[in-house]
Amino acid sequence: MKKIFVKSLSNKYPTKDITLDDRKNKLKLSTSNKKIVVDIGDGVVFGKKNIPVIAGPNGVESKNLMHKVAKILKKNDIKIIRGHAYKPLTFPYRSKKYNETQDLGMNWMDEIKKQYKLKVVTELTEIKFLDRVCQTADILQIGSRNMQNLELLKEAAQTNYPIILKRHFGASLRDLLGAAEHILVEGNKKLILCERGVSIPHTHRETSRFALDIQAIPALKEICNYPIISDPSHASFWAPWVPSLTMASIAAGCDGLIIEMHPHPAKSAVDPLQPLDFKQFNQLITKSKKVAKAINRKLR
Amino acid sequence: MKKIFVKSLSNKYPTKDITLDDRKNKLKLSTSNKKIVVDIGDGVVFGKKNIPVIAGPNGVESKNLMHKVAKILKKNDIKIIRGHAYKPLTFPYRSKKYNETQDLGMNWMDEIKKQYKLKVVTELTEIKFLDRVCQTADILQIGSRNMQNLELLKEAAQTNYPIILKRHFGASLRDLLGAAEHILVEGNKKLILCERGVSIPHTHRETSRFALDIQAIPALKEICNYPIISDPSHASFWAPWVPSLTMASIAAGCDGLIIEMHPHPAKSAVDPLQPLDFKQFNQLITKSKKVAKAINRKLR
Amino acid sequence: MKKIFVKSLSNKYPTKDITLDDRKNKLKLSTSNKKIVVDIGDGVVFGKKNIPVIAGPNGVESKNLMHKVAKILKKNDIKIIRGHAYKPLTFPYRSKKYNETQDLGMNWMDEIKKQYKLKVVTELTEIKFLDRVCQTADILQIGSRNMQNLELLKEAAQTNYPIILKRHFGASLRDLLGAAEHILVEGNKKLILCERGVSIPHTHRETSRFALDIQAIPALKEICNYPIISDPSHASFWAPWVPSLTMASIAAGCDGLIIEMHPHPAKSAVDPLQPLDFKQFNQLITKSKKVAKAINRKLR
Amino acid sequence: MKKIFVKSLSNKYPTKDITLDDRKNKLKLSTSNKKIVVDIGDGVVFGKKNIPVIAGPNGVESKNLMHKVAKILKKNDIKIIRGHAYKPLTFPYRSKKYNETQDLGMNWMDEIKKQYKLKVVTELTEIKFLDRVCQTADILQIGSRNMQNLELLKEAAQTNYPIILKRHFGASLRDLLGAAEHILVEGNKKLILCERGVSIPHTHRETSRFALDIQAIPALKEICNYPIISDPSHASFWAPWVPSLTMASIAAGCDGLIIEMHPHPAKSAVDPLQPLDFKQFNQLITKSKKVAKAINRKLR
Repeated sequence: MKKIFVKSLSNKYPTKDITLDDRKNKLKLSTSNKKIVVDIGDGVVFGKKNIPVIAGPNGVESKNLMHKVAKILKKNDIKIIRGHAYKPLTFPYRSKKYNETQDLGMNWMDEIKKQYKLKVVTELTEIKFLDRVCQTADILQIGSRNMQNLELLKEAAQTNYPIILKRHFGASLRDLLGAAEHILVEGNKKLILCERGVSIPHTHRETSRFALDIQAIPALKEICNYPIISDPSHASFWAPWVPSLTMASIAAGCDGLIIEMHPHPAKSAVDPLQPLDFKQFNQLITKSKKVAKAINRKLR
Repeated sequence: MKKIFVKSLSNKYPTKDITLDDRKNKLKLSTSNKKIVVDIGDGVVFGKKNIPVIAGPNGVESKNLMHKVAKILKKNDIKIIRGHAYKPLTFPYRSKKYNETQDLGMNWMDEIKKQYKLKVVTELTEIKFLDRVCQTADILQIGSRNMQNLELLKEAAQTNYPIILKRHFGASLRDLLGAAEHILVEGNKKLILCERGVSIPHTHRETSRFALDIQAIPALKEICNYPIISDPSHASFWAPWVPSLTMASIAAGCDGLIIEMHPHPAKSAVDPLQPLDFKQFNQLITKSKKVAKAINRKLR
Repeated sequence: MKKIFVKSLSNKYPTKDITLDDRKNKLKLSTSNKKIVVDIGDGVVFGKKNIPVIAGPNGVESKNLMHKVAKILKKNDIKIIRGHAYKPLTFPYRSKKYNETQDLGMNWMDEIKKQYKLKVVTELTEIKFLDRVCQTADILQIGSRNMQNLELLKEAAQTNYPIILKRHFGASLRDLLGAAEHILVEGNKKLILCERGVSIPHTHRETSRFALDIQAIPALKEICNYPIISDPSHASFWAPWVPSLTMASIAAGCDGLIIEMHPHPAKSAVDPLQPLDFKQFNQLITKSKKVAKAINRKLR
Repeated sequence: MKKIFVKSLSNKYPTKDITLDDRKNKLKLSTSNKKIVVDIGDGVVFGKKNIPVIAGPNGVESKNLMHKVAKILKKNDIKIIRGHAYKPLTFPYRSKKYNETQDLGMNWMDEIKKQYKLKVVTELTEIKFLDRVCQTADILQIGSRNMQNLELLKEAAQTNYPIILKRHFGASLRDLLGAAEHILVEGNKKLILCERGVSIPHTHRETSRFALDIQAIPALKEICNYPIISDPSHASFWAPWVPSLTMASIAAGCDGLIIEMHPHPAKSAVDPLQPLDFKQFNQLITKSKKVAKAINRKLR
């Protein structure tokens, strides 16, 4: 049995599916109260004063798109680009264009990374893509749908790469932390948890399936030591609400942000209602920096 | 049929239980896009730059308690005190002390109001208390449980007093706005909507029954013209999370706040896990003012 | 403090908002484990072998409608008619026709009751209608929206009429049982609890806002002594699913049913997707009788 | 693009994340209205008059356990045994015993299958176990957590084995059907959908995390052609409610059942509150046969 790093989890979320002995072991091991910091190099750190922003389109649609996005990030002093070359979708009928670029996407990301000195976050959907993703990525993202794909968690953890684990939209905090422990027991402490909206009764628009669970931010900070970031774009599914939810996440104490943006949102290959355009993005970053400063943190 | 003031509601939340003719009438009437401001006098205004804070204990437990609270409010330049002399509870077994003070509570509130020049918010639970409540209150609060107590809404509206309508913890925005329209059709435009937490699957603590629906703030601003305020205390049911959720509500764009505080939270007659103590309250107000300023608003 | 009849409630649903002393008192009083039977006369009994069916349209739209419905009930040997003359609606814009008949509806119900020897269930929405409703009704229905309208519960309880208390679509079992205790403490033991669908994430159709919480039936039977009935019409909001849910409720152990029917569902003044037509109703009763018999109960 | 078999899905659950052209293609292909039947041999058929029962313990804990279970199944004329040798758990701390047997479990199942002529359902958690599972299993089960593990769905589908796809406890019907289509596009039509409880606000017991979504049964029958089965054991997490929910599922029209049983539930390696003991199981089967007969179906 390897070490566990989630603070006093077993007291607050009794893990009824483990034996009492295991529970005792866990308690013995869960002694660290120190806040965990995830440092991905070049001054980009999750879990301290800075609040890193991860931004980009949903899919790596074209090289041209990624260059445009990278330039906007540099202009706003943002250090991390996102873009998924491999992406799970609810239905198996992807647009042709999207499928074709899937193979090239990682190569374009290599070029972007080198040229703009940006850190790269990209989604890992399947073990067979692990090697290719690790060549390029600085942080592996495990998406909502794969939160409890336990074999994927295990193999990703064993690379010792930093991992963003997104909460499933139907998962409790206990489920999320259970999944997190599947990473931690492999000895990988570079864990970043991400709240990205949960299914609630009474969604707010016909196209909004989720709502940001803002309370998860203080709740997770109370029961675990790892950085918590927020993804208001996927939570709201509706660009006009993203600025409100971004600033709310900062004020609530999040340790990082994922914001979806696209030069022409309506042309986005997936989820076209969700990304900010560049002007909206620039404005949001300006406003968000002020909110971060008001609570003695720094957005970047 | 009287006038309706909710903007374009019927388009976004089709009201399937009304006839097509009514729907057409409604659309004709729903032409105002102007943001509604609720002015309760002496410079206290909901729906403009200022973000008024309403604070106090849950119940009006004693005169001494209310004096202590009033002093803290004055010290923080807060203009509105809350305290419920009449209060619905899930179970019918109230503590003796609470029941006894019920009759005196409104008198104590009169004294407090006069001495400290504070505005008073208090809950209206039953039509039979309407006259007594109106003698003292500057704003009537309709609580979550009574959101669809339609006769109460109607009679409260007819007083033309400002009304805070709290969303039921199981109500959709459509349900909330439907209830709001029961007030508006009476000709009372002094409506303030309040998000106070909704039931979600997977609550975060054993004692937390709700979660703040932060997304309701931008969503309601998109579809209606009335001020939206937030009650992070009832949403979280857990004092340690209230500061995060208060600052998040401000950053998300709320037009007012309800914060529960008590000199000795553990001794609160109801919901002892929920109120801030005075020190926590002072600290939160100081921090919240900074967040409000960062978005060009002013907390007071 | 009057007597309480809910079995061992405080153990399973700790009522954190009451004092320990009250809780102790409650425990002392909650000693009855005997199943409560609600007998409304002429052999109509809730809580024993028989499963009474309550059927009818949503609103008492016309005298002619109620006569048609009554004849179908007699033909199927059903003893209880429902029809609401007073009805709360989400929005305040009722069809003209519906509003006009509101005043006459109770008179028509008197005529129907006398002519067909049917028991009458009708909704009590407001204290001011209490006297008129009690003249006609055999059972008072407290609707979902008024589940926690505590003053209404109290005054209804004091009549000592049988009461159907419908669970709010956003209420926990604890909330429901808390509301029930507001009735029980008045000394009225003629309580019938009703599951009528709750809000869940991911409703099944655009027009379906709720889902039948079938598990509430065994859950309530485990923790309380009172009859539990089911309203699959309001739960599903969609007539084609009502037969499945009706038979499921019987098989799950419900002690009664509320089924909405209308000679021309599409012309129903409210909720036209919900009622069965007469042919569908007859078929469902025939099939339901077989299911009831299979579990040694009798539908009537 | 391969063929799609879910009936008119795109009309009722608009798939906003696919292009219009794809959607048009899909509509063209979705022409079959014929009910799909899944025949697993020896007269065991899902989707016709018979309602097959799948029963057994959660995990394949020991050879002795499986023999005991098999004998009870034979006695009740039940044709399908379940038992998971590979099992995902929320936390990574399994009991030692459970881990050790993991490797032997499939061998024991081979023995059971041969000796008792039972069909075998077992869970596929990871692609690497696919070959071993296919040696023994007659039906592959994709568990709730892996419902959107798309690569697993794809590889499982390509075996052309019958597949039980369990709905994730946080998934909408659209999510479930989207996942189903990932199987169907591979050309595998041997699909069985399974409702196993969803997360709702206000669960009924401290240990009950889910509630059976009984309405999903008629809802899925309305929009798709494939057999729908029900798993009341996982839905309720509480053995005393399983009989009610089993009979309710039959009455609601399910095409099969998964029931968890164990000779000594309290000693079950996982989820000890959930399984029926043998006596309870025998009684439930007897009663369920009567309910099935009442609706002209046959349990076996």
